[in-house]
Amino acid sequence: MSASPYKQLEQEFKRLHAFRGALSLLRWDAAVMMPRASADLRGEQRAALETEYHAFLTAPRITRLLDRAQANAQGLADWQLANLREMRRQRDHAIAIPVSIISGLVKATARAEAQWLEARKHGKFDIFAPHLEEVVSLVRDKASLLGQALNLTPYDALVDEFSPGLTSAEIEAMFKALSRRLPALIRETIALQDARPLLAISGKFAPAQQHALAVEVMTAMGFPFDRGRLDESDHPFTEGVPGDMRVTTRFDANDLFSGLLGALHETGHAMYNLGLPHEWRDQPVGRDRGMGLEESQSLLIEMILCRSRPFVHYLRPLLEKHFGVSGPEWEEENVYAHLTHVRRSLIRVDADELTYPLHIMLRYELEKQLLSGELAVRDLPAAWNAGMEQRLGIKPPNDVQGVLQDIHWAVGSFGYFPSYVLGAVIAAQLHESLRRDVPQLDAEIAHGDFSSLFAWLRTHIHALGAKVTMQELMKAATGKPLSAVAFVRYVENKYLDSAASSAAA
Amino acid sequence: MSASPYKQLEQEFKRLHAFRGALSLLRWDAAVMMPRASADLRGEQRAALETEYHAFLTAPRITRLLDRAQANAQGLADWQLANLREMRRQRDHAIAIPVSIISGLVKATARAEAQWLEARKHGKFDIFAPHLEEVVSLVRDKASLLGQALNLTPYDALVDEFSPGLTSAEIEAMFKALSRRLPALIRETIALQDARPLLAISGKFAPAQQHALAVEVMTAMGFPFDRGRLDESDHPFTEGVPGDMRVTTRFDANDLFSGLLGALHETGHAMYNLGLPHEWRDQPVGRDRGMGLEESQSLLIEMILCRSRPFVHYLRPLLEKHFGVSGPEWEEENVYAHLTHVRRSLIRVDADELTYPLHIMLRYELEKQLLSGELAVRDLPAAWNAGMEQRLGIKPPNDVQGVLQDIHWAVGSFGYFPSYVLGAVIAAQLHESLRRDVPQLDAEIAHGDFSSLFAWLRTHIHALGAKVTMQELMKAATGKPLSAVAFVRYVENKYLDSAASSAAA
Repeated sequence: MSASPYKQLEQEFKRLHAFRGALSLLRWDAAVMMPRASADLRGEQRAALETEYHAFLTAPRITRLLDRAQANAQGLADWQLANLREMRRQRDHAIAIPVSIISGLVKATARAEAQWLEARKHGKFDIFAPHLEEVVSLVRDKASLLGQALNLTPYDALVDEFSPGLTSAEIEAMFKALSRRLPALIRETIALQDARPLLAISGKFAPAQQHALAVEVMTAMGFPFDRGRLDESDHPFTEGVPGDMRVTTRFDANDLFSGLLGALHETGHAMYNLGLPHEWRDQPVGRDRGMGLEESQSLLIEMILCRSRPFVHYLRPLLEKHFGVSGPEWEEENVYAHLTHVRRSLIRVDADELTYPLHIMLRYELEKQLLSGELAVRDLPAAWNAGMEQRLGIKPPNDVQGVLQDIHWAVGSFGYFPSYVLGAVIAAQLHESLRRDVPQLDAEIAHGDFSSLFAWLRTHIHALGAKVTMQELMKAATGKPLSAVAFVRYVENKYLDSAASSAAA
Repeated sequence: MSASPYKQLEQEFKRLHAFRGALSLLRWDAAVMMPRASADLRGEQRAALETEYHAFLTAPRITRLLDRAQANAQGLADWQLANLREMRRQRDHAIAIPVSIISGLVKATARAEAQWLEARKHGKFDIFAPHLEEVVSLVRDKASLLGQALNLTPYDALVDEFSPGLTSAEIEAMFKALSRRLPALIRETIALQDARPLLAISGKFAPAQQHALAVEVMTAMGFPFDRGRLDESDHPFTEGVPGDMRVTTRFDANDLFSGLLGALHETGHAMYNLGLPHEWRDQPVGRDRGMGLEESQSLLIEMILCRSRPFVHYLRPLLEKHFGVSGPEWEEENVYAHLTHVRRSLIRVDADELTYPLHIMLRYELEKQLLSGELAVRDLPAAWNAGMEQRLGIKPPNDVQGVLQDIHWAVGSFGYFPSYVLGAVIAAQLHESLRRDVPQLDAEIAHGDFSSLFAWLRTHIHALGAKVTMQELMKAATGKPLSAVAFVRYVENKYLDSAASSAAA
């Protein structure tokens, strides 16, 4: 007797998972190890594997097996039903887009990325503009086809790729709540900050020692260095599949904290993936539940837990150990003030958690207008600058620090930006429940014990994989539907913290 | 009008080439970067890509296209005809072996390799024996099927995988010529050596500085570090495809030369691959012409040219620069004596070029007997030790320094060992022609100029790819058919060198 349709699908997706792992390694290597003149060759390798991946997902055999498995679903366990749903989801996304658009996007984004780098080098948006136009036009076609296939608006169809089930309506409700409170909160926070002394922290911090510090903290968090690595790259990222998770960061010899926090942000992603259910590891249901949840895991670690007084208490002796630093500027309260300093700035990736959502809202608005045709690519820099002035009260002196700062649009990632704010909002809501369930959390973190933290995350988030929707997961973990309420409460408590004001008084 | 069958094949093999590159990276990473507990996962990834590769080569569509292209071959250029022949060769090898044997071998060799490591750890051949038996049995089936398909004897069919067109008869003619001269030459050389003073060379040489030295010499040789890397691994190797060639070596803090010469050996392989014709780079005809020629390129560099007086003349100031060494033991003649020291030793990879062929002949004899069934796996250690005593006059004190030293049989590489001696023989014959055509070779090498050397190799070897057979290539490059005559002449000149004896007298 041959295997059931469902079991055959499991076998097919197991193979697909191996391809995913190989593709992830090709990307990791390209960013960390690859000689610089080998990019074209690597592009051909990635394209070949991605084409195979796509052909596999869209093969008539998969559709037939999915239909037959669906018709014979009785007797399947809950997780297998969820797996079937995720398999179909992947197939639906893949089959909606014709190969011509996919290969067109591969080529257009390769050109656009190269010209984006050129445009940054010369500070000239014009160099990038025609290539971005080409990408926008293809993404528009893609969004339209995907929307028809998934019965979603074109933009929501793009969002659905990154954060399954999330809609513009939910994103806008979230943004609305944040817009109501953040501008005033930023003003109040900056006023409080200005009234407190802040001692400058400076020095030269050798990358090798920064690496050693990051490894020590990651080890304390339980990052398994026998099934993962920490390396350096131009921008921090996480690649790999559970069983071999690789994180990177970027060490700045003048800034002790940026490399460490970059590594810990990525450790949040890595721990999520490492905590996914082992028995489903090579199946769609064993994957993460979208970019919003991914980002929640990195932001919970980096922003909420590592930019906190208990973490600074744990960190201070390590700074002394690794760098021999001491003096008043290295006192806990001053280090904490540095890690939570708020300012209106130009660059998204350097932004604090209060101003960060404003950067995203601008991008969200602009990318929707680009796709709908309301905004022409040539008018993008002016719209960007006006948006920055309106939202943050500052104007970029040039496009490199403005519209040219992010790679996302060049590589065709429209609909991705909202995940960042979604992540912050999810993180804050999870954080409230985590504190309720683990009252000793601060005490543990203060002496470098992260075990209760990750035990809680594993139970409530990681171990579920993609079995339930993000909204179901939030309801189960926190008892409430997803909303920005907890985030607003969290930032108000943190940034209007009377203890800090009085401690510094 | 659709593309011709031949052009369609070119497209298909281009895709296959991208898979080859990806697979090569998966292997490189496993040996150089991969966290140690990720081996199983990597095994799944490699198996998935290899299965795809095999399925692709054996698809009915490829056979159909090959037949149609063959029937419409008029109008194809010479290199395209050769390409068609190489395509068919790859397909013939792939289709001869059923998937059941291939996957059986993947599993059996994975187990055998792990148990080989265990057996080495505990010094117990018995741990390895049952797994080697399983591998031998599967390789025997494979050889038999491959032999039938290719109309070769089973052993020759295995050899054909590594060195296309080479036969046992040619191997044995070569071995016979070497057997006639080497044992006496080893005796004479050792007697000469014993009559000369040899100052001990010792010290601690930091791996980072050894790496810097290797990079400097490789750069002088023209290794393109923007399209390649040098890293460390347990055993030196070369991976990659032209456009991204990666070599590794192993640095021993107590031995300045082993890491450097390992790196230069691999540089020989890398330069061969980097010199392959760019316009055929993603086609079968654009690949190297088998392991014998591969090994000739590494041995010509490492053994013939870098273990020479002109190279030592170039190297000495670099040793002083990188390690600050000086003194009589660092004089050129003493360094040269170290690099060309001959001794009867137990370990193949540490052997000099005079004793090396004897190590290979033993393995050749034993592997043929294992496959034919004349020799049982359980009797292998005794046969090994007897063979060592007979050929080299020394007996391994244990199996780790005896039959367990090489990984080849554990991973199913039967028929590979002769390539090493073939490589040495080819290298010596090429070397004679190289000297004839480039009379200034020694003078150039003595001041670190390797340009004429690689120009000659590119013209006569590298640029031909797999367009002609190895035998045709040798005839064209040297004017003579392949034979061991030049090798014997070379080692006699080098090791019975009166200049060295008198200089030391």
